[in-house]
Amino acid sequence: MKAHIKITLKTGVLDPQGKAIEGAIKGLGIGGIGEVRQGKYIEVDLGDTSTSAAKDVVERMCRDLLANTVIENYSYEIG
Amino acid sequence: MKAHIKITLKTGVLDPQGKAIEGAIKGLGIGGIGEVRQGKYIEVDLGDTSTSAAKDVVERMCRDLLANTVIENYSYEIG
Repeated sequence: MKAHIKITLKTGVLDPQGKAIEGAIKGLGIGGIGEVRQGKYIEVDLGDTSTSAAKDVVERMCRDLLANTVIENYSYEIG
Repeated sequence: MKAHIKITLKTGVLDPQGKAIEGAIKGLGIGGIGEVRQGKYIEVDLGDTSTSAAKDVVERMCRDLLANTVIENYSYEIG
């Protein structure tokens, strides 16, 4: 069982990396794009476990380690 | 319309960041986990456009700018 975790900056938090990517995309000659936000994507191999146990573990990982919940949101899929 | 892009290291490419996260998860006392891989997650606001035009633009962004296709894979959802 694998967890696919996305960590993104909360709305309103400045994202200079996203801004840099936005500038680079425009530099490619691609117009009409709006805001770009960069986040993290983490895959964790959870071994053999039940979906509910996996959910508890992933929730704990996200809250205590992977995301800074003051400025970041997290979401995940388990499967 | 928004693009949700995931960029991950190809299988076999060393991922020291993932290894560090794996060590930190084990340090939290969470056992039984296997490999951890870290990638990037990027959201791009594409404005008003058709799905097929959006797909072309996102494909170009990924290939020419966001992913290093020698060592990275990319995947995306548009919606």
